[in-house]
Amino acid sequence: MLKEVMQDILISCGSVAKVVQSARVKSSYCKALPRMPREDCFLLLVALALKTVAGLENGLARTPPMGWMPFERFRCVTDCVKFPRDCISERLFMRTADLLVSEGYAAAGYEYLIIDDCWMEKERNRITNELMPDRERFPSGLSHLSAYVSQLLITILFSVLVSACQIHNKSLKFGLYHDVGARTCMHLGPGAKGFHAIDAKTFAKWNVDYVKLDGCYVQGIDLNKAYPAFGQALNKTGRPMVYSCSWPYYQNHPNFELIKKHCNLWRFADDIRDSIASVARIMLKYYRMQQNLTKHAGPGSWNDPDMLVLGNFHLSYDASRMQLALWAVLAAPLIMSNDLQTVRPEIRALLQNRAIIEVDQDPLGIPGQCVLISNSIQVWLRPVMPTNNIGLRSFAVAFANVGNHEECPLCPLTFTIVLQDLGFTNQMGYTVYDLFDSKHILGLFKPKDEFTVRINPSGVEFYKFKPEDIY
Amino acid sequence: MLKEVMQDILISCGSVAKVVQSARVKSSYCKALPRMPREDCFLLLVALALKTVAGLENGLARTPPMGWMPFERFRCVTDCVKFPRDCISERLFMRTADLLVSEGYAAAGYEYLIIDDCWMEKERNRITNELMPDRERFPSGLSHLSAYVSQLLITILFSVLVSACQIHNKSLKFGLYHDVGARTCMHLGPGAKGFHAIDAKTFAKWNVDYVKLDGCYVQGIDLNKAYPAFGQALNKTGRPMVYSCSWPYYQNHPNFELIKKHCNLWRFADDIRDSIASVARIMLKYYRMQQNLTKHAGPGSWNDPDMLVLGNFHLSYDASRMQLALWAVLAAPLIMSNDLQTVRPEIRALLQNRAIIEVDQDPLGIPGQCVLISNSIQVWLRPVMPTNNIGLRSFAVAFANVGNHEECPLCPLTFTIVLQDLGFTNQMGYTVYDLFDSKHILGLFKPKDEFTVRINPSGVEFYKFKPEDIY
Repeated sequence: MLKEVMQDILISCGSVAKVVQSARVKSSYCKALPRMPREDCFLLLVALALKTVAGLENGLARTPPMGWMPFERFRCVTDCVKFPRDCISERLFMRTADLLVSEGYAAAGYEYLIIDDCWMEKERNRITNELMPDRERFPSGLSHLSAYVSQLLITILFSVLVSACQIHNKSLKFGLYHDVGARTCMHLGPGAKGFHAIDAKTFAKWNVDYVKLDGCYVQGIDLNKAYPAFGQALNKTGRPMVYSCSWPYYQNHPNFELIKKHCNLWRFADDIRDSIASVARIMLKYYRMQQNLTKHAGPGSWNDPDMLVLGNFHLSYDASRMQLALWAVLAAPLIMSNDLQTVRPEIRALLQNRAIIEVDQDPLGIPGQCVLISNSIQVWLRPVMPTNNIGLRSFAVAFANVGNHEECPLCPLTFTIVLQDLGFTNQMGYTVYDLFDSKHILGLFKPKDEFTVRINPSGVEFYKFKPEDIY
Repeated sequence: MLKEVMQDILISCGSVAKVVQSARVKSSYCKALPRMPREDCFLLLVALALKTVAGLENGLARTPPMGWMPFERFRCVTDCVKFPRDCISERLFMRTADLLVSEGYAAAGYEYLIIDDCWMEKERNRITNELMPDRERFPSGLSHLSAYVSQLLITILFSVLVSACQIHNKSLKFGLYHDVGARTCMHLGPGAKGFHAIDAKTFAKWNVDYVKLDGCYVQGIDLNKAYPAFGQALNKTGRPMVYSCSWPYYQNHPNFELIKKHCNLWRFADDIRDSIASVARIMLKYYRMQQNLTKHAGPGSWNDPDMLVLGNFHLSYDASRMQLALWAVLAAPLIMSNDLQTVRPEIRALLQNRAIIEVDQDPLGIPGQCVLISNSIQVWLRPVMPTNNIGLRSFAVAFANVGNHEECPLCPLTFTIVLQDLGFTNQMGYTVYDLFDSKHILGLFKPKDEFTVRINPSGVEFYKFKPEDIY
């Protein structure tokens, strides 16, 4: 299988390099990203050759985790008098758990309800040294909240072949934030330093399914030892817990080989904010690091570009599409941060878009890359299932327009590419599906065909190219 | 009637001044606007006392013009090969005229289809000195386009009392851009300098209903003479044409008394762009000039904060609501600039919101003001019809949240005010309607009642307070 990936990418890279080298790629309007140098593409080959999937094998997060986390939307609001609907409290999490199920998010795959910072009392229990949830904001305790969450049943219907149905019941899962250092980042609650075993046991006792471990207040701590140590403490409890590490974000030269041995996902960029500029900054960071980031990701091990912010206040509809499509290409965890009670219908429909979620959750687990930049157009490509009868893969391709065209800043731009220049070699052609509109099938395209898209400013078009069988 | 306005405002101002002076208006998070000083409110009184409606009385624009203009969205795109859907051409205008009618905009009141810059040949006709439309992009000529537009019939249904209906047929109207100087701003086409009579006659010949006169390349021209002179040339044709002047925008100390005698509307701020920052800048400019701007506006004479940009790519849903509500408070012309073919349904619904359009088009024609700023909350208020049985007016009130709350930048903010502090004196109370949701009536509020709103970041809530009859 690795050989096939290599072959696919070798062809792609040859062509892409050729395109980048020869085509009429004029001086770039794209302010965000430098053009992808030719040699990067070959580095990608090396990267994939090294891809040995020696990640954390705790059996968890075989696809990128999906769920909800309050931080970007609700920050560290602890004043429940002034902000009764927005403060970090059990009411917020119970309401959100209910909405995950009742509004259809859970059935679409969003299963982890994760508490971020600011849930703790400022000091540990003086006798047991255990962490304690804030007693005013979490009066029922975290065992109770965990039980509430895990008892909410989601009914999932899988369409199986010709309209036959299977119904599965599963429940939500419960996540919790902690910090590897002396204090948590925002709330300055007690960190894990010196208390790994106790805290891991406490988490297991509370039936935690997912731990996010931040990296503030780490003076005198070697992150390359502390993160593995806390992970081992979690393992020793015997309870399976997804392990989300902020580890590489806090290092200048992260050792991803080491990180992926200990963590199921890891943050590599700044905290996201509710703006297209923030989304673009994270895309840029990923692009600059993509050779390194992609070679370590796969089932059980994911790059985490931070939360989905669509559904809040500042992203336009086009910007919302942009984040969703790009996160799916990156094989990113889809962890929403929004108020599910006020997400507008058209954004809820985006968040629950089954075709895009299927790309994100693709079982191959190969993260995508930006393979071509032409002026303000970026082409992002991810190999996904299904394969055709000789094993050629499908591709999810996002065409993003990240820049302002000087002549007409608000004109959608038209971009045309010959498919073989993207490495599409299947002579029988590819059936092309619009991932934003499942009813829209664009037809059959052969490798020598031109494919033309019209892309809104700060917008994206997102297609799946499915190879036809050879006969 | 003027006395009543004075009385309303006197009461409002007394209260508002009191609120501003005494209330818990803490140090402001609002970066955009300084707090309204107490004395401003009394300046408003003076302003209204001077309001003698000595504006241009050509019988046109008795309410703010509504329509469509390409500039913000389509700029000066003249390359119809590269941008076939977006170039300034008769195809764009005919398509838009069709959509104004078929998509329901015309029935909602959007009637003027206005061509902005870049429609002309670069030089005048050598024999007649007449302006000529670009022969490649407007091959059928402007008489033909004008006829096409004016022959599109809109069927309008007015609900009259108990569901009885009157049906009116009316047609779209046709507008054209010109420049008072030697050249037009973007296209550098021939300006009106030296050709007032010829150009006015040409416009009349083409059955133009609305003229936008820009102010570029005016070296050696006294705007205070040239704008009136071109207006007189228009009048001499005998054809009624709404006269939109960019005049004050190009002056440091505009003489609005003079301007309103000659123009139906006038630009006072920068060209708008497709961003909430641009909308906020124009709101700020209006706020700083509001004493001066409001005293000259009224039926036939309007301040023009530039086009509506919702329906494009960069405004969020909340930002779209913000622009629409504020433009209605300002009694602004509602001239859209977008691609009507791709405006999303939820934005189309905003643009066609009848209750908000009714506020904008209120027959009193009294423009609103920002009457209170408290931290990042701004209260904008406009007196509108109907009155109650003793002549007390209704109010349209927009509560805008323009700032980021430090503790929780994405938390909607709760704001409470006692209604009498806004100058609401009707002891029988006010029935409150949600202008964004006609089905939502909030109930009856008395002057001493608290009124509480929860406002999204960069968002607005917009209500109509209708006074109950006294008995």
